[in-house]
Amino acid sequence: MDKIKSLKIIKIGGNVIDDPIALTSFLTTFSSVEGPKILVHGGGKSATVLAQQTGLDVQMVDGRRITDAATLELITMVYAGKINKTIVAQLQALDCNALGFTGADANTITSEKRPVSTLDYGFVGDVKKVETSTLELLLEHGLSPVFCALTHDKNGQILNTNADTIASELAIAFATQFDVELYYCFEKKGVLKDVNDETSVIQTITKSSYKKLLDSQLIFSGMLPKLNNCFHALEHQVSKVCIGKPEMLLDSEAIFTTLTIQ
Amino acid sequence: MDKIKSLKIIKIGGNVIDDPIALTSFLTTFSSVEGPKILVHGGGKSATVLAQQTGLDVQMVDGRRITDAATLELITMVYAGKINKTIVAQLQALDCNALGFTGADANTITSEKRPVSTLDYGFVGDVKKVETSTLELLLEHGLSPVFCALTHDKNGQILNTNADTIASELAIAFATQFDVELYYCFEKKGVLKDVNDETSVIQTITKSSYKKLLDSQLIFSGMLPKLNNCFHALEHQVSKVCIGKPEMLLDSEAIFTTLTIQ
Repeated sequence: MDKIKSLKIIKIGGNVIDDPIALTSFLTTFSSVEGPKILVHGGGKSATVLAQQTGLDVQMVDGRRITDAATLELITMVYAGKINKTIVAQLQALDCNALGFTGADANTITSEKRPVSTLDYGFVGDVKKVETSTLELLLEHGLSPVFCALTHDKNGQILNTNADTIASELAIAFATQFDVELYYCFEKKGVLKDVNDETSVIQTITKSSYKKLLDSQLIFSGMLPKLNNCFHALEHQVSKVCIGKPEMLLDSEAIFTTLTIQ
Repeated sequence: MDKIKSLKIIKIGGNVIDDPIALTSFLTTFSSVEGPKILVHGGGKSATVLAQQTGLDVQMVDGRRITDAATLELITMVYAGKINKTIVAQLQALDCNALGFTGADANTITSEKRPVSTLDYGFVGDVKKVETSTLELLLEHGLSPVFCALTHDKNGQILNTNADTIASELAIAFATQFDVELYYCFEKKGVLKDVNDETSVIQTITKSSYKKLLDSQLIFSGMLPKLNNCFHALEHQVSKVCIGKPEMLLDSEAIFTTLTIQ
């Protein structure tokens, strides 16, 4: 059966969030994207700045924040309050009818607190279930949901969840009924052969070429979790995953990376 | 024409927000209220506490907070982030399908920055327009919108707006199509003849009896802005306005104040 409804899920990272000019530029682009669309945003550096102001210790292990109760309260304020509402208000000014979400809102994303093994990540949630019905209703009526990187456990607990994962899990949940394209926007033009050379964009990565790239250790290690997320989505009926600068959303001449199963 | 759709708009104030046990108790009550319902919540003292932690000066004039840019950022974090998402997650745990809103979300409440006269209130907005269509859609599908006390100017600016006013303006906007009941929940049983005597609840106030109460100076002055809000709503087709403890929502024996036009 052909999927007659299309949906674009677009994720922006912290670098865009932290730069007001880049953010406004991105939101202008997002508001011009046609058809049903969902925005997922990362957190940026505001949470760390606020933690310092309030004297909160930020515990990082292997580059990952440990989310204790005080940190969770702080990121809930920054992600769902400051950043999410700044984005929603700016999109409204651009006549894009945005509506902010955490996974708790309309029970859209339920997650499970990550079990404690060698490391206790604290209030971090791994996605269990995405409920699309309210989002579908809103998309049908021309609204654009805007997600921050928080979910809930359906027992009253908010949990911190990676924004890339939220984007791919939303994409997978919609892919049973929608033709879903997933776009990861960041500060580079795409996946680069040489991380210092912007002209070295790998324009197409298939599952088999990805394995070769991994074997040859040609990909910057920081990209690996993102790429694994992408292939996870492609293996679950998401039709297309793209990585690049926001201009890829509108400019037909733009160079970026497209990932496909084959 | 009889209005066939009913709607309850329920406002809770800061005292409930600041007390986790009272909040959970209220939310349990709210989740049991039948039929379409909207929750509006005030801010509580968290914003002041966070302001102190971050070294921000809170400017108060006549008991009203002056909302400069730093204060606006802080209350956006506290109201739309911390408090709103705590409430939404708790309601989800109670199987009440809540969805958080500021006035910017789905462009529901547009306001105008209060003009500077003798006093500059800063980023405070007076409500201009309430857009009910998305809220109606969600109510029809069993969702309960949860509003914090923030609006926007449709030009990208978030504005601080009194929660009592948000509740009455929402009630008025829906009253053209819905049979709307507006409930102001607070820590007392209702409007009291003697502010120190909980048994002195005035059970019914009509517009004419209100004038007599005003003339006799029998009402606690702190109640006057709230009561003016109530009569403003009643004059705009809201069918019933009640003031009292949250128990008035479920307990048919509860004593509280009902305001009516006649």
